Amino acid sequence: MNTDYGTFYGVGVGPGDPELLTLRAHRLLGAVDVICYPACKPGASSYAFRVVKELIDPTRQSVKGLVFPMSRDLSALKPIWRQSAGAIVEELRAGKSVAFITEGDPMLYSTFLHVYQVIAEEQPGIAVEIVPGVSSISAGAAAGRMAIAQGEQRIAIIPATYHAEQIRATLERFDTVVLMKVGSVFDRVLDVLEEMGLADKALLFSRVGARKGFVTREVRAWRGRPLGYLTTLMVVKDPNPSFEPEAGAEERE
Amino acid sequence: MNTDYGTFYGVGVGPGDPELLTLRAHRLLGAVDVICYPACKPGASSYAFRVVKELIDPTRQSVKGLVFPMSRDLSALKPIWRQSAGAIVEELRAGKSVAFITEGDPMLYSTFLHVYQVIAEEQPGIAVEIVPGVSSISAGAAAGRMAIAQGEQRIAIIPATYHAEQIRATLERFDTVVLMKVGSVFDRVLDVLEEMGLADKALLFSRVGARKGFVTREVRAWRGRPLGYLTTLMVVKDPNPSFEPEAGAEERE
Repeated sequence: MNTDYGTFYGVGVGPGDPELLTLRAHRLLGAVDVICYPACKPGASSYAFRVVKELIDPTRQSVKGLVFPMSRDLSALKPIWRQSAGAIVEELRAGKSVAFITEGDPMLYSTFLHVYQVIAEEQPGIAVEIVPGVSSISAGAAAGRMAIAQGEQRIAIIPATYHAEQIRATLERFDTVVLMKVGSVFDRVLDVLEEMGLADKALLFSRVGARKGFVTREVRAWRGRPLGYLTTLMVVKDPNPSFEPEAGAEERE
Repeated sequence: MNTDYGTFYGVGVGPGDPELLTLRAHRLLGAVDVICYPACKPGASSYAFRVVKELIDPTRQSVKGLVFPMSRDLSALKPIWRQSAGAIVEELRAGKSVAFITEGDPMLYSTFLHVYQVIAEEQPGIAVEIVPGVSSISAGAAAGRMAIAQGEQRIAIIPATYHAEQIRATLERFDTVVLMKVGSVFDRVLDVLEEMGLADKALLFSRVGARKGFVTREVRAWRGRPLGYLTTLMVVKDPNPSFEPEAGAEERE
């Protein structure tokens, strides 16, 4: 462990409501020297940063947006991740503590994993602490009053961008299927649900607890409409009919 | 909505470390009139209660252990759940606010779902608020430095008590498989991992962040040893080799 360096924290800030931060995330974000957040392009804002910005004291703490573009071409992305990770290592080397924030949980489909990978490879001696967070799935299920799973039920979580046939096969085999990042392919996925008679057993949610967030069981109403990147569809084959959605939670745009 | 009744809160208290409570859970548990926790038999203690007991002020708040025995015989359990739910409704009817606490997240394999089901069926007018929590899966992954999933990876979460053939088929089809409640069947599951060459790609964890909790990649060391009910095995086919377990996190018994 390199004790001259500052500690690197990977901090999950939860699904969007600042009150769903953990006590540890809250304490660390008030204490670290530098807070870094992922941005899709230079100068862009960040969902994770908006969740925590009220906690930050700009007279004591510095804030850095680091570029993590979205692309499936990993070979093109790696040099950019390396550059963003380099900016973090520079602060750590100067003895500063650095928190990299990410929405939801840092170990579940997060940008933190990219930066952690580069730092773990290139600077294995740095002290790293990872603070788990409430996932968007848990927040959507709570607001939409739909249990993710009970008893012996089985869950699959897959990116919604898989082929329709793979989504169909997963829906056949599991009690609950969570389709991540459904925004860009929603109509195609809704077709599969309609064919399988499952459109009434689905919950659609996005940025739950944040401004412009929503959760709804009326998934058909979203056909043909734009949906953001952080949108999830959860299909529960045997939803409890007594669990009624929270008053006012149906849609919050 | 019956406004004479108190509000019923389902509160996830996270995986075991009191600092992994959300700010909202922390606020509500300091404010409600009654805190209820699930106990496997009358007078028994509770893991969830031990996580939050320091927050409770016995001069203002009352604490009730409610019996939720573990069994697969649902017809025998329903009357007992109804009795426990009845004790909650009695408090709500007297205008008291009641929080039912549960480890991890309340929508994911929790006892809260049983009590919520009875209350939703029998007292549909009661105001209910569900507070999501950090799941044990997120906490184990963070402490064990093993990403749950990245990019296009697919996750399955199933109770470990399924037949070995079903566990094998799930391991064949998914990048990450989380086997819940593996304690009672661990040796049988380890046999499957050994046959499939996956024993080096697994993380075993229990009550992460609490006393007697542990997380380890040395899963073979647990063959033939007793494991608690709240033990999880996560198999990640492509774990990142650079992610090293947190110093001191290997085992904490």
